[in-house]
Amino acid sequence: MNLVIITEADSIGKGCYRLADKRAKHIRTVLRCQVGDKIEVGVLNGPQGIAQIEKIDDNEIVIECLTLKLKPIVPPVVDLICALPRPQTLKKVLTISATMGVHRLDFVRSNRVEKSFFHSPVLQKENYTPFLIEGLSQGKHTRLPEVYIHDRFKPFFQDTLPKLNRGEMDLSCRLLPDPDVSVNLKDIHNSTNNRLLIAIGPEGGWVPFEIELMESLGFRRFSLGRWVLRVETAVAGVLSQIELVRMMK
Amino acid sequence: MNLVIITEADSIGKGCYRLADKRAKHIRTVLRCQVGDKIEVGVLNGPQGIAQIEKIDDNEIVIECLTLKLKPIVPPVVDLICALPRPQTLKKVLTISATMGVHRLDFVRSNRVEKSFFHSPVLQKENYTPFLIEGLSQGKHTRLPEVYIHDRFKPFFQDTLPKLNRGEMDLSCRLLPDPDVSVNLKDIHNSTNNRLLIAIGPEGGWVPFEIELMESLGFRRFSLGRWVLRVETAVAGVLSQIELVRMMK
Repeated sequence: MNLVIITEADSIGKGCYRLADKRAKHIRTVLRCQVGDKIEVGVLNGPQGIAQIEKIDDNEIVIECLTLKLKPIVPPVVDLICALPRPQTLKKVLTISATMGVHRLDFVRSNRVEKSFFHSPVLQKENYTPFLIEGLSQGKHTRLPEVYIHDRFKPFFQDTLPKLNRGEMDLSCRLLPDPDVSVNLKDIHNSTNNRLLIAIGPEGGWVPFEIELMESLGFRRFSLGRWVLRVETAVAGVLSQIELVRMMK
Repeated sequence: MNLVIITEADSIGKGCYRLADKRAKHIRTVLRCQVGDKIEVGVLNGPQGIAQIEKIDDNEIVIECLTLKLKPIVPPVVDLICALPRPQTLKKVLTISATMGVHRLDFVRSNRVEKSFFHSPVLQKENYTPFLIEGLSQGKHTRLPEVYIHDRFKPFFQDTLPKLNRGEMDLSCRLLPDPDVSVNLKDIHNSTNNRLLIAIGPEGGWVPFEIELMESLGFRRFSLGRWVLRVETAVAGVLSQIELVRMMK
């Protein structure tokens, strides 16, 4: 918990917030704070800065925010499309994506996705949001990714995707990791500031029909490297490669 | 399980191997194989290729290897030093490292590593090896990483490290991810084929004394990107960035 995420629900007025859940436990037992100590906090989808511990006991902690400032969004903005993974993997993908600043996550049906995955309780907003917030705490920022679930493949790509308003996004920024090609991310991603859309396949990969449909919509294939990666490792890998390309400009 | 890893202990002679554990279950229930079907196999620390199912029942599977070939090692060879993480994280680091071709893993003590982590049962070879093999199965290769545990920081860096025979490794290939610098991996890693040594810190980071000591031994700091990453995400991230730099040559 590198940043304690707070929300309006925690507010008790005058810039003070009351925490009584695992955040309080973390502040007490890991950070080992006392009254007067300062911690880093961020308001969910809002500014972040420093807060001071005003009260601390076994039941609750009260903090007062001293400085809070909105952090600017540094491009490129990245969105992910991800074949819906099994629930345990989904949790990791949510946390890693939130940590690494993904703006929007679209989980889609694919040929190699088991139908049962769509019945997981994790797909309920109140169940998946804690994994996103854990990711924000880790990555030290406050912007909660938007999450959407699509239980059909073709309608998502053919009907939903074209209608999304992604601002400056253009077709050259739709990317598709694929172990069978030799071009790399730097070869095909050279318009630094544009919004990027990356499609991550299921365990076993997209089937040819799915790749063909995505390519017809402007997705370009690239290689993440020599190894066949698990879904959550591929997500961390592609977002890290995007960071390297961004820093190389 | 993209590659079924077999060992001499499974051999029943004449190129045949008998499987009766979770590999057999995977071949039966996930791959849904029948007699005559072919699967991808690899001999631990040896060649890999195709095997044919000779016998399959509820208790065991017998396969016969048809083609087995040693895969060449593609440089760069990467070694990791990692501050010993908590056991759950350690398992992930082992699997990801094996998947992504790390040759040697040295887990070390650091100021921010809890002493109790050194008493974890996962540190026993028979307990950690399955996580490495899971990684090889995922990444589709057979070379088991070497794993070493060091319960003191300074003696490892000052005494053990200089004595390791790392062949072509030179000081310019010792790297240290650090969120506080602005140089990136491409800036400092330009000798493609050399063996790379990367030091991954604990949750909370190395302390200044540790960074100074590593820098005095030739480790150079670089940024993985904007975000503060969990240990296992940082491992996936740095290995993915190394892959991108390798492909850019």
